[in-house]
Amino acid sequence: MKKFLNTPDSFLSDALTGMAAAHPGLTVDLDRKIVTRAAEPQRPKVGLISGGGSGHEPLHSGFVGFGMLDAACPGQVFTSPVPDQILAATKAVDRGVGVVHVVKNYTGDVMNFQMAAELAADEGILVETVLVDDDVAVQDSTYTAGRRGTGATVFVEKIAGALAENGASVAEVAEMGRRVNAASRSFAVALTACTTPASGVPGFHLPDDEMEVGVGIHGEPGRSREKLRSAAEIVSTALDAILSDQPLAPADETIVMVNGLGATPLIELYVLFGEVANALSGKGIAIAHSLVGNYVTSLDMAGASITICRADEQILQLWNAPVHTPALRWGM
Amino acid sequence: MKKFLNTPDSFLSDALTGMAAAHPGLTVDLDRKIVTRAAEPQRPKVGLISGGGSGHEPLHSGFVGFGMLDAACPGQVFTSPVPDQILAATKAVDRGVGVVHVVKNYTGDVMNFQMAAELAADEGILVETVLVDDDVAVQDSTYTAGRRGTGATVFVEKIAGALAENGASVAEVAEMGRRVNAASRSFAVALTACTTPASGVPGFHLPDDEMEVGVGIHGEPGRSREKLRSAAEIVSTALDAILSDQPLAPADETIVMVNGLGATPLIELYVLFGEVANALSGKGIAIAHSLVGNYVTSLDMAGASITICRADEQILQLWNAPVHTPALRWGM
Repeated sequence: MKKFLNTPDSFLSDALTGMAAAHPGLTVDLDRKIVTRAAEPQRPKVGLISGGGSGHEPLHSGFVGFGMLDAACPGQVFTSPVPDQILAATKAVDRGVGVVHVVKNYTGDVMNFQMAAELAADEGILVETVLVDDDVAVQDSTYTAGRRGTGATVFVEKIAGALAENGASVAEVAEMGRRVNAASRSFAVALTACTTPASGVPGFHLPDDEMEVGVGIHGEPGRSREKLRSAAEIVSTALDAILSDQPLAPADETIVMVNGLGATPLIELYVLFGEVANALSGKGIAIAHSLVGNYVTSLDMAGASITICRADEQILQLWNAPVHTPALRWGM
Repeated sequence: MKKFLNTPDSFLSDALTGMAAAHPGLTVDLDRKIVTRAAEPQRPKVGLISGGGSGHEPLHSGFVGFGMLDAACPGQVFTSPVPDQILAATKAVDRGVGVVHVVKNYTGDVMNFQMAAELAADEGILVETVLVDDDVAVQDSTYTAGRRGTGATVFVEKIAGALAENGASVAEVAEMGRRVNAASRSFAVALTACTTPASGVPGFHLPDDEMEVGVGIHGEPGRSREKLRSAAEIVSTALDAILSDQPLAPADETIVMVNGLGATPLIELYVLFGEVANALSGKGIAIAHSLVGNYVTSLDMAGASITICRADEQILQLWNAPVHTPALRWGM
């Protein structure tokens, strides 16, 4: 296994230690595995929390900060955070006006966040949940009933986070999160499998000339295994899947992310983004904003995902709002 | 070859097309392969240019923008930009007060930048050159007489760029670039080789349990090939190499970068950074600022580099100054 690590058991703790040292804007509770903002918001606001298995960095801890998350609960690699951990994070960021949980649609995450929400409710904390299920590749999957939650999580966290920062209510923040999820679709392609530190071997075998089309961010099977094709053809396949699920009309405005799955270099992501921009432009669809880089990774998987959000005026405004996190930073 | 691309021949053009679509703050001249700022500086300032072979993204084009570079000249993958291209960029950003070239120490780059500087001088443009040679791994290397230029390039471009933005003269900007280079040291370790699109096969073979210690950013051999060890031991080897070349004393302040070479996920870089922070803290050395992520890559190489700059008050101030580029953005 070719990884920088000390032991598989200490992998998450060691990474959180590094994260704490790198980002003075974060407070990292190593025992409870909770990442919060180092600076308390200047006025009470709705708390926004997310979490899930580790191995998808910068998701979620890299999105903790002004204008985005109040806390992240990282589980072990590809393993849900536990209810106590989520409850502790919920209590840590509740300022009396409620907390919103952003949950990617994986069975373990859904169950543990739900349990934490019930425990928090018992303690009098108002909790709303936003379920992210944007991956159009397959209907059900290895760890998921319904669609998997992937790239749109970044859009939900940014846009709901901006609304929370503006002082919106817990119901308004949750409604906006759901609106962004409903407006977003993703599709991913893997060129190689990823290897978890615990197993030490790739999760699946992909021959030298093949790709997994519609892969999940834990290496879950997609729609088909196909011969590797050109960047333009791969983008065409992904956009067909996305746009047949959510048609876009000329003059629609979008936010587009071309996301690396961990082992794909930026220059290849730019090649893909060029093809996406070209294809959308051919249909008269505008890209108002974009992200190209590693945002929702899958350990050391070579591959990429495309996420498209159909954005109304309010979504665009909230996207533009100032944000100050390790992985997204603008306007301040 | 498992890459997102259309054809090896169109790889750079396709990537630049994507970069232009992704970053409205950049103007990309696809014919001449020059990337400049879309917005002209508000007052005449020294032009700061860098360039080199592609495959190291975000270096250099991702560092074009306010507070950093005025232009980048990307060559083909791992191939120097040509003198005409560098000359055109130099002329494009000369505002009558001169231009500084930041050149990584590779024979082709040095030769072509020098030729461009002479041609520019013939046209009456004042050009100063800053040579970056921070890699302590080996004295001479495959494409280099003397030390290779690697991670410190980011520090030089950021800090000299901030000084240029403040209205400093061409001599002052160049002197600051040289000062930052002289204060910086790097060391890299590869877990896998990278594959160029043109060759289609890995540049070297590394057995499953071995690493290349002191590797260059084109896969040049390092000091030794060794059995893979723990993150803590790898960091210890790298820091020994760096600190034996440039001793640091307790109370010294530093800027530290833990940089991914392209295929190493962020969570592993945080593990490494945690070890670096721990080791420096044990020696009483302060990390004033840090970068953890992919900044100077080597296509799809799995590996990482560590760069340490001993920073005085002025360097720290210039590091903190506002910057607005695709890959570094803060303070605005």
